[in-house]
Amino acid sequence: MAYDGTAYHGWQVQPGLATIQGILEEILSGIEGKPVHVMGSGRTDAGVHALGQVAAFDITNPIPPDNLRRAVNRLLPEDIRVFDVRETALDFHPRYHAVAKTYEYRVARGEICLPFERRYVHHHPYPLDAAAMALAARCLEGTHDFSAFAAADDRDELGLSKMRTVFSSALFDQGDRLVYRIRGSGFLKHMVRNIMGTLIEVGKGNLDELGMLSLLGSDWNRKAGPRAPARGLFLMSVEYPPASTLSRAGTLPSSG
Amino acid sequence: MAYDGTAYHGWQVQPGLATIQGILEEILSGIEGKPVHVMGSGRTDAGVHALGQVAAFDITNPIPPDNLRRAVNRLLPEDIRVFDVRETALDFHPRYHAVAKTYEYRVARGEICLPFERRYVHHHPYPLDAAAMALAARCLEGTHDFSAFAAADDRDELGLSKMRTVFSSALFDQGDRLVYRIRGSGFLKHMVRNIMGTLIEVGKGNLDELGMLSLLGSDWNRKAGPRAPARGLFLMSVEYPPASTLSRAGTLPSSG
Repeated sequence: MAYDGTAYHGWQVQPGLATIQGILEEILSGIEGKPVHVMGSGRTDAGVHALGQVAAFDITNPIPPDNLRRAVNRLLPEDIRVFDVRETALDFHPRYHAVAKTYEYRVARGEICLPFERRYVHHHPYPLDAAAMALAARCLEGTHDFSAFAAADDRDELGLSKMRTVFSSALFDQGDRLVYRIRGSGFLKHMVRNIMGTLIEVGKGNLDELGMLSLLGSDWNRKAGPRAPARGLFLMSVEYPPASTLSRAGTLPSSG
Repeated sequence: MAYDGTAYHGWQVQPGLATIQGILEEILSGIEGKPVHVMGSGRTDAGVHALGQVAAFDITNPIPPDNLRRAVNRLLPEDIRVFDVRETALDFHPRYHAVAKTYEYRVARGEICLPFERRYVHHHPYPLDAAAMALAARCLEGTHDFSAFAAADDRDELGLSKMRTVFSSALFDQGDRLVYRIRGSGFLKHMVRNIMGTLIEVGKGNLDELGMLSLLGSDWNRKAGPRAPARGLFLMSVEYPPASTLSRAGTLPSSG
């Protein structure tokens, strides 16, 4: 799925608030004729966008997947789109079975942020040392304790490991645009936005590569940069081992 | 200037409605301390976007152009941006001195329209013969009577010539995206959207190249296609002869 997170209070259902999960559940429950629970690959915060979110649900309605995709897209608001619907193994779980996720964060550096991009980039029209940011970004690759980049309200959850593996972490300098891409086994709440805020501090000269390294494995009270705004962040893709997404269509026809 | 036309009732001031001209006049009047009239290169309809609109105004405030640009951008909403402010000859008129304008119209053809593009393309997820559309688009080049493509409420304005010169008219097939670009000496109200609606009829097989040719110079009651939606249309640029935009800064300092 893709969504423009601007108008939503994030992925997760919250009573009385518009959320992606809430709208999907409403539409699928209408199609099924009884409550349907939708599980996502993970939550996205209020205002964060997605180009490759993955969700799963159980229904008994024998509607073929392609027809379900078309029906859901007709019922969804234009700022949420479903690219693909397919049958999976019965035990497929979009969160537990995910082996990697990729996020992108986009920073517009020019004096002027185009009106058409204003919801989809963080506009930072001040000097940034992109080369220093790229070096600091690379430091995050590997398996580390990311406590310093956890959300404030997550930091005191003792006993829950903050160890995560980052497969790649790279900053691309496209002139007026900086794109930061991070692929990892899993992410703590606010982790990517806290990393991006810290990289911006590096770009401003307030922190260097060594300062970034010292945050890894450090106590939660070490100072990471401020959390970067939601609008620049996109969940790009979620990866699964081939087996868990095997369609059941070959052995169990989707329509009765 | 660039603007996202989604939230506006077009360029032109209308009492009680948000318009681009209205917001600019309000901001510039505040800076000048008395009413300032802003002239545009032409009106854009409600919902139409711009990447290269040009406007002019007279002020006596000696603020240097670069500072004025920054001040105006700070005061404008994020969906309107001013790229450049410069002094011109005293008699410069953004409409009368314009020698060419370029518009682009964007059609998204795939089943899914990305949420991030939904305000900036016309989504047409049905088959279109892009090659036939490209041939028909070329027919419009040259000097013709465009009455058949005028707005309905403009068609009975007798005595006003509907002759216009189109320098280039081309459709580009980019796969999931069709881009139509037209550059001309001037355009009638709704002309580009009526042309685009007619090209879509060609793409659907309801009209061919000869049908398009027969509309040129024809009576207003010949059937052009329905007007295409505003959201796909962008005013890309307005061109002036070099002399009319010569800065006076060389001979008459802008400040004090």
